[in-house]
Amino acid sequence: MSIRIGIYGYGNLGRGIECAIGQNPDMTLAAVFTRRNPADLKIATEGVPVYSADSAAEHKDEIDVMILCGGSATDLPVQTPMLARDFTVIDSFDTHAKIPEHFANVDAAAKEAGNVAIISCGWDPGMFSLNRLYAGAILPEGEDYTFWGKGVSQGHSDAIRRIDGVVDGKQYTIPVQSALDAVRSGEAPELTTGEKHTRECFVVAEEGADIARIEREIKEMPNYFADYDTTVHFITLDELRRDHSGIPHGGFVIRSGKTGKDREHTHIIEYSLKLDSNPEFTASVITAYARAAYRMQAAGEIGCKTVFDIAPALLSPKSADELRKTLL
Amino acid sequence: MSIRIGIYGYGNLGRGIECAIGQNPDMTLAAVFTRRNPADLKIATEGVPVYSADSAAEHKDEIDVMILCGGSATDLPVQTPMLARDFTVIDSFDTHAKIPEHFANVDAAAKEAGNVAIISCGWDPGMFSLNRLYAGAILPEGEDYTFWGKGVSQGHSDAIRRIDGVVDGKQYTIPVQSALDAVRSGEAPELTTGEKHTRECFVVAEEGADIARIEREIKEMPNYFADYDTTVHFITLDELRRDHSGIPHGGFVIRSGKTGKDREHTHIIEYSLKLDSNPEFTASVITAYARAAYRMQAAGEIGCKTVFDIAPALLSPKSADELRKTLL
Repeated sequence: MSIRIGIYGYGNLGRGIECAIGQNPDMTLAAVFTRRNPADLKIATEGVPVYSADSAAEHKDEIDVMILCGGSATDLPVQTPMLARDFTVIDSFDTHAKIPEHFANVDAAAKEAGNVAIISCGWDPGMFSLNRLYAGAILPEGEDYTFWGKGVSQGHSDAIRRIDGVVDGKQYTIPVQSALDAVRSGEAPELTTGEKHTRECFVVAEEGADIARIEREIKEMPNYFADYDTTVHFITLDELRRDHSGIPHGGFVIRSGKTGKDREHTHIIEYSLKLDSNPEFTASVITAYARAAYRMQAAGEIGCKTVFDIAPALLSPKSADELRKTLL
Repeated sequence: MSIRIGIYGYGNLGRGIECAIGQNPDMTLAAVFTRRNPADLKIATEGVPVYSADSAAEHKDEIDVMILCGGSATDLPVQTPMLARDFTVIDSFDTHAKIPEHFANVDAAAKEAGNVAIISCGWDPGMFSLNRLYAGAILPEGEDYTFWGKGVSQGHSDAIRRIDGVVDGKQYTIPVQSALDAVRSGEAPELTTGEKHTRECFVVAEEGADIARIEREIKEMPNYFADYDTTVHFITLDELRRDHSGIPHGGFVIRSGKTGKDREHTHIIEYSLKLDSNPEFTASVITAYARAAYRMQAAGEIGCKTVFDIAPALLSPKSADELRKTLL
């Protein structure tokens, strides 16, 4: 009996979910829901229906878990509570500051309908959050550090593209090696985000554009670049396509803490990710948690959950016996 | 209302638990239980009673969670099921091959008594197991690698000390850097334990002992050293005490896996520990899970649990709201 997954929104993340389902034999892609004209959408899996997003509720009996693949700015705040009325849902809402509000909205809707909903699933929020929680609970006296990269920041790339005279551009967030080394040494330094990361930009300018001005506008852009050591490279569109078409990402969560009678012992807990494809890895995390959502719904749980609330065993297709025997 | 902890067995691990309780304001050390004469045992915390291990059951109303600090070979297989009849218990049973049997024994006793029991808590088994589970569920097509060290192996140090002519000795397990690098590159090499680790021994020999014979006996010892690149250094007792009195340890759990239509994207998930004190870190993990045991018991759960069965939020003293707001 396969877990029937619905994908709601078919962009990079939705395609990643589709791939991940193919790697999990206990799951089946049951349907894709789109705001585009369903007849125009060609998906990778043969024989799977594509429905209009508006008609989702009509297909509630075909879907065990609906995975929402929209954006955090405007899609998910509306879609997740709405779909939680008819489905077990899971999303990757990643606007950290608005998580409590989103949680409350989704929780109310899911509880009213008697459904399970998982929000903010992926790697940050998600696996990085989990590691901050575990490490902090184990070493109560210590400091947490999160570094991002090396990876493409969509938001910063978009910011570059909005500058006058820019045809296209891509921004990499890069952790500062000396900051990483200091943290790993157990020194527990105080570091701003700008001291932990540099930003490297690859920019395609319009012919005849004032590249000195573009570089200045990037480097002086408040919030995005002004507080960072930022490097700007001007390249051709061909070079951008050839060398910068991937969506890699990753990062590090490190906690250093002290134990012992006189706090004389230092411990370093480090979790790191090195990802060739940010959306495909995020999709892989979500897909594992979709299994947990299905099981929690079957067990009669209701309401909104996050990675913090979910026992690890629920993510794995293996039985409890097998897990203890092979992985513990 | 503080969680009242009992420590059953006051060796390195028990002393580590005592320190860790001092770092967790929601916990109190209620009593220490020892097989020695309680009058002879001086513990670090003032005003805490020391009782005979035999009398534990008489003090069941003074203890919320009993932490068992005995050894896996002969202590815990007997003690954990026995104490689970009267207490919420937690142990660090680490004989991987015997976990299913130990689980079954503890589960039966805990269920009969209506108690929660957590077994095999620490870092391996424990945090390393958790990371193997999470990473495997996220990247179903991939390979797991566990490296241990650099750290002191108690079992290998003991094996050296049993050799004729040896006064004392200490063995370090060291991960092979080239093997670590190959795994991190995503190559997914096949590696034996011996290809992943080297062993370095510091040995104090009796005066006039045949050190060539001792070195040969170490290097040829089956299971312990024969399959490894082993180095033996002869040093004085003063040097051993000066340079090798610590109990550091650590290691790496790495999974490399593939995603994408043609499995064209590689992802590396790495979890690592660098620990100045193996017993104090193990104690810190157990103490966090003691909080979870207390909460599960209070929620009416019963039976034997492992790190796989326990939702991460249960480890933290923070509320669910606070966790979502600050760590997600």
